[in-house]
Amino acid sequence: MEAARPEVAHNNSTERQEGGLRFSFLGPRGTFCHAAVLQVANDMDQLIPAIDVPSALRMVRNGDVDYAVVPIENSVEGGVNATLDSLTYHGRLEIKAEMLVPITFALAARPGTQLKDVKRIATHPHAWAQCRGWIAEHLNDAIHIPATSTAAGAQILASTADNPGFDAALCPVPSAIEYGLTVLSDAVADNPNAVTRFIMCSLPGPQPERTGADKTTLMVQLPSDEAGALLTMLEQFSVRGVNLSRIESRPIGDALGRYAFSIDAEGHVEDERMQAVLVGLHRVCPHVDFLGSYPAANGKRVRPRPGTSDADFVAGRAWVRHLLGKS
Amino acid sequence: MEAARPEVAHNNSTERQEGGLRFSFLGPRGTFCHAAVLQVANDMDQLIPAIDVPSALRMVRNGDVDYAVVPIENSVEGGVNATLDSLTYHGRLEIKAEMLVPITFALAARPGTQLKDVKRIATHPHAWAQCRGWIAEHLNDAIHIPATSTAAGAQILASTADNPGFDAALCPVPSAIEYGLTVLSDAVADNPNAVTRFIMCSLPGPQPERTGADKTTLMVQLPSDEAGALLTMLEQFSVRGVNLSRIESRPIGDALGRYAFSIDAEGHVEDERMQAVLVGLHRVCPHVDFLGSYPAANGKRVRPRPGTSDADFVAGRAWVRHLLGKS
Amino acid sequence: MEAARPEVAHNNSTERQEGGLRFSFLGPRGTFCHAAVLQVANDMDQLIPAIDVPSALRMVRNGDVDYAVVPIENSVEGGVNATLDSLTYHGRLEIKAEMLVPITFALAARPGTQLKDVKRIATHPHAWAQCRGWIAEHLNDAIHIPATSTAAGAQILASTADNPGFDAALCPVPSAIEYGLTVLSDAVADNPNAVTRFIMCSLPGPQPERTGADKTTLMVQLPSDEAGALLTMLEQFSVRGVNLSRIESRPIGDALGRYAFSIDAEGHVEDERMQAVLVGLHRVCPHVDFLGSYPAANGKRVRPRPGTSDADFVAGRAWVRHLLGKS
Amino acid sequence: MEAARPEVAHNNSTERQEGGLRFSFLGPRGTFCHAAVLQVANDMDQLIPAIDVPSALRMVRNGDVDYAVVPIENSVEGGVNATLDSLTYHGRLEIKAEMLVPITFALAARPGTQLKDVKRIATHPHAWAQCRGWIAEHLNDAIHIPATSTAAGAQILASTADNPGFDAALCPVPSAIEYGLTVLSDAVADNPNAVTRFIMCSLPGPQPERTGADKTTLMVQLPSDEAGALLTMLEQFSVRGVNLSRIESRPIGDALGRYAFSIDAEGHVEDERMQAVLVGLHRVCPHVDFLGSYPAANGKRVRPRPGTSDADFVAGRAWVRHLLGKS
Repeated sequence: MEAARPEVAHNNSTERQEGGLRFSFLGPRGTFCHAAVLQVANDMDQLIPAIDVPSALRMVRNGDVDYAVVPIENSVEGGVNATLDSLTYHGRLEIKAEMLVPITFALAARPGTQLKDVKRIATHPHAWAQCRGWIAEHLNDAIHIPATSTAAGAQILASTADNPGFDAALCPVPSAIEYGLTVLSDAVADNPNAVTRFIMCSLPGPQPERTGADKTTLMVQLPSDEAGALLTMLEQFSVRGVNLSRIESRPIGDALGRYAFSIDAEGHVEDERMQAVLVGLHRVCPHVDFLGSYPAANGKRVRPRPGTSDADFVAGRAWVRHLLGKS
Repeated sequence: MEAARPEVAHNNSTERQEGGLRFSFLGPRGTFCHAAVLQVANDMDQLIPAIDVPSALRMVRNGDVDYAVVPIENSVEGGVNATLDSLTYHGRLEIKAEMLVPITFALAARPGTQLKDVKRIATHPHAWAQCRGWIAEHLNDAIHIPATSTAAGAQILASTADNPGFDAALCPVPSAIEYGLTVLSDAVADNPNAVTRFIMCSLPGPQPERTGADKTTLMVQLPSDEAGALLTMLEQFSVRGVNLSRIESRPIGDALGRYAFSIDAEGHVEDERMQAVLVGLHRVCPHVDFLGSYPAANGKRVRPRPGTSDADFVAGRAWVRHLLGKS
Repeated sequence: MEAARPEVAHNNSTERQEGGLRFSFLGPRGTFCHAAVLQVANDMDQLIPAIDVPSALRMVRNGDVDYAVVPIENSVEGGVNATLDSLTYHGRLEIKAEMLVPITFALAARPGTQLKDVKRIATHPHAWAQCRGWIAEHLNDAIHIPATSTAAGAQILASTADNPGFDAALCPVPSAIEYGLTVLSDAVADNPNAVTRFIMCSLPGPQPERTGADKTTLMVQLPSDEAGALLTMLEQFSVRGVNLSRIESRPIGDALGRYAFSIDAEGHVEDERMQAVLVGLHRVCPHVDFLGSYPAANGKRVRPRPGTSDADFVAGRAWVRHLLGKS
Repeated sequence: MEAARPEVAHNNSTERQEGGLRFSFLGPRGTFCHAAVLQVANDMDQLIPAIDVPSALRMVRNGDVDYAVVPIENSVEGGVNATLDSLTYHGRLEIKAEMLVPITFALAARPGTQLKDVKRIATHPHAWAQCRGWIAEHLNDAIHIPATSTAAGAQILASTADNPGFDAALCPVPSAIEYGLTVLSDAVADNPNAVTRFIMCSLPGPQPERTGADKTTLMVQLPSDEAGALLTMLEQFSVRGVNLSRIESRPIGDALGRYAFSIDAEGHVEDERMQAVLVGLHRVCPHVDFLGSYPAANGKRVRPRPGTSDADFVAGRAWVRHLLGKS
């Protein structure tokens, strides 16, 4: 689950401490996103919590940080729309790494509170959605108090003297401990396999080296709104033997029924077959955003289908050049 | 934009007032969903606000109401995950009508508040996402206070004597008026064409009559997680000339990388070509949920491609029966 | 290689001897087609040689015979155009059985002739094409004298007293023996695996019983002469998991560039998936001729892909009927 | 219908008269193929009749001639198998031009013969096939005497003193006149639009210049004998917007059920989209023979589909190079 520390050429436009990098992340401290950034940052680096995903990404665009770490996909809730949409708006960013974080919540309260006293629970709506079953079983009549993050409720419980309007918070275990709260349960989760995928983004630049177990992320607008446009787009991948590991529609936003697709494809932009896919998409789609090639966190190696290896493409081009009398 | 009042055979399992129907909807009163339910309900009907989408749908399953009205798709934010997922869990429901509601917000405050005083704004996160640009331009340093609905902030401003922790609410215009608030702006929206699509669901039963401008909603699990599975599924539609007006991936929830697809297809289950698609999907996909055929709110008539009309299917089957010596 | 004797209900429109059937075949006696008809006829039957393929088929249409046996495909020369085209013209016929005959030729001459004396060789052009390599090696300067069948040259050598204009005939071994000729070589063939496929045709009527190792033959005119028409037609097969064992283009004959396709598909018209293919072809193609379902001579059993068995189609239709409230 | 005279760099390995080229063609003189070669040859050139198609092509391979002219496709009978197969065997040749010749026959006899006297007619089997309807109507009981070419019968009638074994010949009108025969009918043809396509071949070398109305001919072996292999191959064309004007299956010859496909595709090897198709075919097919790019005889200009022009490919590749930091 550990992503290799990124090898980053120091970006001169960014002022920073000797030897360290700057990371923005979806704050506050103590969230799962904080756990994600710790997979790639080290002690020399500076971690800066952001109020929301667009803010974290804006810091990269402004040169305030080298990287932003934000969630992109949750195994229960699906794609994180704010991230999918924000990567391409106001200046394209590129993904340089992905990190997986298992999702389990603590039910945390002020010392002295007992489980039976919990009537109102603060947490982020996504967290609430992932714990509804557990709550229904153990705290049948508890009410959800929305918070801006999974850690915010814990922070308020710890820092406010007066009544915060709720009795407990659903938060990551480390944040409960950090804030000195009592953990009433440390395994609140409807799905014990829940995991969230985070990405580390930077300004466009050199891609991480090809490892053989890579992903390429794209945002592709469909050729047209007519029938078969999605099939036409998907054929650009299938005819070159490139598999998709994720595809999500996103409204283009100007009207109902107009979509772009956020796609993770298996392979690296340095793979010949991926380059052929990109040329094909560029030809037939009105807009394609390249959002980076990076090592897959699950380490799953791509096995090219017969006829789709780099050598196959090189041999095919050499043959055509020969037919043209150019070699 | 007006959906015809549904012709519903009264359901004996539901006790209700003489002549009226019961609708649950995503409350509280004053939200856009309230506006949606008013498109289909009349004065005799009973409207019951629900705390969230799963609750609204549960009332249908329990027989507490005849119909639930909930949002399914937003032209800016995309699919409403809670609805997409909840329609199939704990007992399949069917969509009987869809309604479109244009989305514009009012910035509402207590009488006496001026625009320059507004520092903290309460609203639902989706609403906030749709107004970020306007806020940045007019109230640069305003902070978001999350609320459980677009109307909740207005309600609190109106009903609480003490400091509610925010200065204004972003809410539908009618709810601002209903709660006696001052409307500082009545056209807060980054995209003036924003619209939300709502659906009216009931227990499975007879479909609304075919109008020639219909939609059919499905949740389809992919044949497998291997390459080409999505293409295989989409071909079931294209080979019979059925177009899709919406497709969204939803995580199945047990692991990253496993998806089902929520689909709106053009046409009615009484169309021969749609029946052929359904037989095909049932054959090759591990799971298909039929979620109803109903009139399209935009009234767009489906023009079948040559060879895909009902008559074409009937003639083809008659020919094969003839070959088999059965006619 | 033996086809089962066809179980034919005696056709009242055909007068014949007690107990026997009448077969026309591509004559004269002694050809490979004669060998083919012997695979399906018995001693009670009457075998009538025809001067060419259209004549053999016309005898069926006229009610002069019960069956015609003609070649349809040669592993070296490809499809037999006269047969592919004649099955559909002037009244559709149906294939009731297929038979395979291995192709090896004898070089036959009048007694006393020696190999070195052979300068001119009579045979059918197709036979000549299959022996060119052998001739070039053993009789370098020999010249081809075209004959109307593979047996005609042997017959003329045996029956004519005066100079027939050639020294030897390339003919099937049995015909050389029958005509009392000397066999200079009994294994003349460039490809020792050469085989010709013959079919037994009758007027349209009940199909042979489904065996699980069946073929269905079709002549399909393309939807249009535009790009992608062939793909569209082939998808009708692939989407239902039906494989093709042969496909050949045939000019429609009215202009260059307009084609129909002669197709052998794996399976029987009583298979649900084949019926679905036929309905699909009937819908999208301007013309489809069904030319029979019959046991495959090679006995290769068809293994339906998951989701394409009869039970899968029946279950799919039952589900759709259930959705329509019809069961 | 006139093909431009080919611009050929004189081939030093071929000895020839000052200024002239040497053409072999499917003889004898007076055939339609003779008419075809006259479309491209001029008075300085030497025309050498060949006994059959393989012989005509062998003269090119041996350096005895610069070009061979042979038939490749007949609008009634379909592909000319000998040509389709021979272009690739024993050394690949390339097509440099195509010519169309309208096909109408003369019924020619010795002076004094009347139509009612004609009982036996000599001609090539293909010619007989194209005139069967006319013969049946006008000379109901006439018998076919096979000849090795459409002109051979006329030549024999004119040159032999004794009984040739037939009363008339079906031959091209010019050959009837050349041999001094009486033309009993000069418009014998079942289909007045019948046309035969001829090709002019040479050793592999520079392609004729791109005209915008070009064809490329290929022989492609299928990826495998499994289901879907033909679809996979055709997708290589469709995904790049290249249309096919002809496709014919040819048995590979080693066993029934193994095929290669002879294909004419619209466009020139110098078109980017055609090069992409060729690279794709080279990748996924076990064997691809390139048989030349040349101007289409019908002058039909190719209109590339949006996204498939040369500029589209160039722009797509430039974008990918940019992503790779190479420009």
